[in-house]
Parts: sequence; structure tokens; C-alpha cells
Amino acid sequence: MSSLLVVGTVALDSVETPYGKADEILGGSATYFAAGASFFAPVRVVGVVGDDFPMEKLDFLRKRGVDLSGIEVVSGGKTFRWSGRYHLDLNHRDTLGTWLNVLETFQPKLPEAWRDTPYVFLANIDPVLQRQVLSQMKAPKFALADTMNFWIGSVKPELLKTLASVDGLIVNDEEARQLAGTPNLVKAAKAIQGMGPRTLIIKKGEHGALLFHEGRVFSAPAYPLEDVFDPTGAGDTFAGGFYGYLARAGKTDEATLRQAVLYGSALASFCVEKFGPQRLVDLTMKEIEARVGEFRDLARVG
Amino acid sequence: MSSLLVVGTVALDSVETPYGKADEILGGSATYFAAGASFFAPVRVVGVVGDDFPMEKLDFLRKRGVDLSGIEVVSGGKTFRWSGRYHLDLNHRDTLGTWLNVLETFQPKLPEAWRDTPYVFLANIDPVLQRQVLSQMKAPKFALADTMNFWIGSVKPELLKTLASVDGLIVNDEEARQLAGTPNLVKAAKAIQGMGPRTLIIKKGEHGALLFHEGRVFSAPAYPLEDVFDPTGAGDTFAGGFYGYLARAGKTDEATLRQAVLYGSALASFCVEKFGPQRLVDLTMKEIEARVGEFRDLARVG
Repeated sequence: MSSLLVVGTVALDSVETPYGKADEILGGSATYFAAGASFFAPVRVVGVVGDDFPMEKLDFLRKRGVDLSGIEVVSGGKTFRWSGRYHLDLNHRDTLGTWLNVLETFQPKLPEAWRDTPYVFLANIDPVLQRQVLSQMKAPKFALADTMNFWIGSVKPELLKTLASVDGLIVNDEEARQLAGTPNLVKAAKAIQGMGPRTLIIKKGEHGALLFHEGRVFSAPAYPLEDVFDPTGAGDTFAGGFYGYLARAGKTDEATLRQAVLYGSALASFCVEKFGPQRLVDLTMKEIEARVGEFRDLARVG
Repeated sequence: MSSLLVVGTVALDSVETPYGKADEILGGSATYFAAGASFFAPVRVVGVVGDDFPMEKLDFLRKRGVDLSGIEVVSGGKTFRWSGRYHLDLNHRDTLGTWLNVLETFQPKLPEAWRDTPYVFLANIDPVLQRQVLSQMKAPKFALADTMNFWIGSVKPELLKTLASVDGLIVNDEEARQLAGTPNLVKAAKAIQGMGPRTLIIKKGEHGALLFHEGRVFSAPAYPLEDVFDPTGAGDTFAGGFYGYLARAGKTDEATLRQAVLYGSALASFCVEKFGPQRLVDLTMKEIEARVGEFRDLARVG
């Protein structure tokens, strides 16, 4: 089993969905990723918070073996905050506010002992910072990145430099279309693979996910959920389950990648069942395996 | 192998896509359905055209054993015409015109010898006419219906009566949401199954299809097509492939239904490769089997 390192945000989120409202709950890409990945492999988190951050909120991660010593606490600084409201169909949301705070001057610094971590996930942050992390690593076996419409639209040349240095990319369908400049996802996938990442995952929310790898395509189903309470963090939790599974397996061949997509999908399907990362706190490996079994059954022909 | 009967439209379509334009080409739900189903089982078509209709356009169906003797030719009448323009992403289209013509007074009449056909597909026509067909049949083994937003919005009570008398329904995701009055597809499926059809297929275009049957869900992938030329008729071709496969198998258990969804998906993926039903004219069973194999591979885990 290999360790994996994530650099991303640790945040306080205020979320409103048709089912309720929660203020200043635990959020952030690194948080959700670590919550998903911690079921499979030792996770190392690089991030930043202000000294207003209630560190005990991360206790459930520490108990699952997540090493939080790479989270810098800025004295006198305020933690990154995000606020959003979901539409009735839960597939769309409006960002009500983003307060970068300590994130504004964040310069990720890897503890010396972490530089040889074999698996690294560059969560959705400035592509310049993503490369700063990569440049501090010795020779990662597999580097996986996330990004979003904001970086594609505003700093595409920097993003392209980052993409040229990673092995894999996880984006959603809209981001893939925007990045490649074509509405057709198959054409978009080819174009993005041409930018660097040999392995590409396109998340399609309620329609599942696509994996593009070495000329082949894998189509993973979505879990037929009747009640989605809060989609926040589902994408990062997917990435955590996917990548944690790869790190545990210690390989990235086609069969392992396909299994990993199912584990990522299963983790994400739990994430949306409750507000924030709440459902991931008391989730068990037994529940995860049972749901992966349901995913297999969903796609089983005959 | 059992026969199957379809009642639906035989039309002349004028279609514009980002890739080209075609005027007065062969169209209609019964036409596309028969084209898809004819690879698997003997098909009987009930419909109506005017005497302006060039019957030789249907020769490719006749050669594949489709019995067209249930198509009434109205002397002095004009054939049903539809005209539409697709958007750049090909997922949306505008109807430019619908000329019902002979369809306006259509009263489907089944040849006496066809009344005991075991499988019947009620393509997307007025639900009152759909029931008129059912009432002329002896005891169909399985009755499958299609419908559309127009009937859901304008004659829902009539549609509900039809749904109460069929075994299966094929709709797209928007129609399912509208019919059930909920954005969640799993909830919508349960509500629709409560209206009558035990078997429900929800088509999701570029996201594949869902099959709901006896409490289980099957998620079929979509074929990762780079070039879609004309989506017209894909839904009816899907229905034809699906239903033809069922009729050939002579059973409707879960395993057969799942296989049938893959065959329907494969047929639909061919349909969109060329304008109108053109690609279905010279298609071979060997090509179909190869593509079904690709569909299996798309969803194969590990």
C-alpha cells in the first residue's frame, strides 16, 4: 500500500439546498478528498487554515490515519470560506460568496519526508501552485490533477503547463468541453489527452463518469439515488475514493483504473446523502463494498 | 421467434443539422422502429400515407421481411410531414413545422390475421389511437408504448388510461420528469411504474439509458460517438432494436431485457451516423454484433 499526498483547500462552507441550510461547516477539496481516500491508504494533507479554524473538526480524519501535519496554521489569519445555494434539481448551484483569506498568500511547502510520496493529488487550486507542489516532489509514480472553469477561463496558459506535467486529470463534463473547446466529449477527451494527461476521468454527475485511458473508454453508471441532500464535495470525494483505491492497489493498469472509478463513484454517492462531509464520518468499509457491489449490478449485462 | 406489430407514423422529413440538410427524406416512428426491429423478428407495420408517398423508399424494409400491408394509402391524401433544425450540440432541436395531413383522420385498422401478434409497439401517436390498436388485439404477450411531451401536456388523462393497459413504456428523461412531475429520475420511474407499465426504459441520449424492472435498475452506457450527423429517429430505432431482440428471444425476463437494451443502444448508435434512416439500409447483423460487443466492453469492470 502506497501513501498519497493531497494539496488543496480546507474550508468553512455555508450551504443551502432545498432540504436545509448549514453554516460554517467543514469543507474544502483536501478535506473531502482525504475523507474518501483514507479508507484505502495513508493520506498526507498539505493546506492552510487561519487560527480561527476548529481543528477538532478534522479528528475523524486523524483517527483514520490521515496525517494533517502539512496543514499550515496562519497565526492571526482567517480560514478560506465558501458559500453557495443549490437549485431545486441539485444539478446547479450559485456561489453566494468566496472569501480566500489565508488562501490568498498560500505557498504550499512539503515536509521534507513527504517529497517521495508516490501518489499526489493536486486538488482544484491555482495551476501555478499545483506546479509548485510537483516541483517539490522527487519522482511521483502518478500525479493526478483537478481544475475548474475559473482557471480554464482566466489562466489557461498556466493550466496547460500543469497539464503537461501530470499523468491524470479529473474534470466534470462542462469543464472538459470548455477546456477542449468542443461540445463532443469523445473529441474533448482526445484533445485533453493531447495536452498531457494519459488518463482522463470526466464526471457527469447524475449520469455517472467516463474513464479515457490508452484508447479505451469505460462508462461507469451513477447510483440511482432518490434523495440527494447536498452535492458539495462529491467530486473531491470521488477523486479520493478513486485515487485511494489506486494507491492501495499500487498500480494503474486499465482493470485497476476501472475498479477505482467504481470505488470513487460509491464514495461520492455516500457523500451526497447528508450535509457536508457528515456521511463520510461514520461510513464503514463494509458499506462501501456493498455499494460497489450495487454499482457492479447496475451495469451487469444479462 | 415471435412476430411484432408496430403502429406509428410513416413520414417525409426535412432535417437540418450543423452537418447538412436533407429535404423530404424517409421518416416516421414506424419506419425507424421497423428498420431497427427487422434485424431480429418479422415486423408488421400499421400506418397511413397519402398517395404522394414514394413506396419504393420502403423497399429495404420489405427485403428484410417487414410486412407493409397494414399501411393504408389514402387516395388523394398527403403524407404526414415533419421539419426540424438541430442545434450545434445536436442534443436540442427546433421543430420548424408539422403537417399532419392524412394523420389527422387516421383510424388504425388491424388486418384480421394480425390480431394475435404477441408483441405490439405503440409508437408515439395520440394515446386514444394507441388504445384503439390495443382493443383490436386478442391478448398480446407484451405491449410497449412510447409517448411525448405533447400528449403528456395536453391529454394526460387519456395517456394515463393507455399506460394502465401496457406492459412497458419507453420515454426520454425529460418526458419521464414531466410525466411524473419530479426532477429525480428514480422517483419518477417509481411513479410511472405505479401508472401501469412494469417495465420502464428512460433514454438519456448521450448519457445512455436506464431500465427499471421489478425493483432493479440497469444502467446502459452510451456509445462514445465522435460524430453524430443526425439524431432523427434514434429513439424509435432504439425501440426497434430493443423490442426486436425481445421478440426474437420470446421472453421478457431481467437478463433478456438488459441484453435487449444493449441491442437497442447499438442500433440507435448506428442510426445517428448518417442522415435519416440511411445507415440502417445497408447495416448488417455482423456490424450490430460487433457494436454490442463494444457496448459490453464499455461497461465491463476490471
